[in-house]
Amino acid sequence: MQQDTSFGVLTGNNIEARSFKAGGVIFREGDVANELFVIKSGQVRIQIGNRTVTELGQESIFGEMALIDSEPRSATATAITDVELVPVSEKQFLFLVSQTPYFALKVMRVLAQRLRVTNKTFG
Amino acid sequence: MQQDTSFGVLTGNNIEARSFKAGGVIFREGDVANELFVIKSGQVRIQIGNRTVTELGQESIFGEMALIDSEPRSATATAITDVELVPVSEKQFLFLVSQTPYFALKVMRVLAQRLRVTNKTFG
Repeated sequence: MQQDTSFGVLTGNNIEARSFKAGGVIFREGDVANELFVIKSGQVRIQIGNRTVTELGQESIFGEMALIDSEPRSATATAITDVELVPVSEKQFLFLVSQTPYFALKVMRVLAQRLRVTNKTFG
Repeated sequence: MQQDTSFGVLTGNNIEARSFKAGGVIFREGDVANELFVIKSGQVRIQIGNRTVTELGQESIFGEMALIDSEPRSATATAITDVELVPVSEKQFLFLVSQTPYFALKVMRVLAQRLRVTNKTFG
């Protein structure tokens, strides 16, 4: 079943985006974390060590793990192309979860899909 | 950091539990799913193929993946000891997510922790 995991609604024109050039490191495994990102444009690679976990495009989120469990970054994120990212702070994240249950469900879907992919890769 | 992922509040005395004998199969990988479970007592093993993904005790939840993404069961759950489980239907789950943001965050923490464990095992 196709699941809606688009977070495009969070990349509206009034929100300031952060830009990274192709090849730039957005964050590194082990970094302290206090925000997640929505991809406004471009593509991002998520790696653990040398292993690429996933590659993500427009309207995807990443960096949500560290926000959920208050642990350091579990992976490294790099810009594949030039990218524009909309940061979502921990405070904004908690607000979204509490005010919009649909947002919470979409974040859960992202996590569940990543677990399924990981389990299929290594199962 | 120790994270609260206890769902004991859902196993109150007024809720009817479902019992499984040690060794009994609770659900199988590929099964159609419409509920998650909270462990009221006992221990449960989660397996994908022959690989044990995790073993869970009292107040843990499992079976949440299929509820979140409406896919079949991603793993097989077996009773290690005699167990008592409190089922949570999809409807109850959606109600809990929408009414209690703290519940949503705890479910996200469970998923994030499982992803971290899986990534560490195979990273």
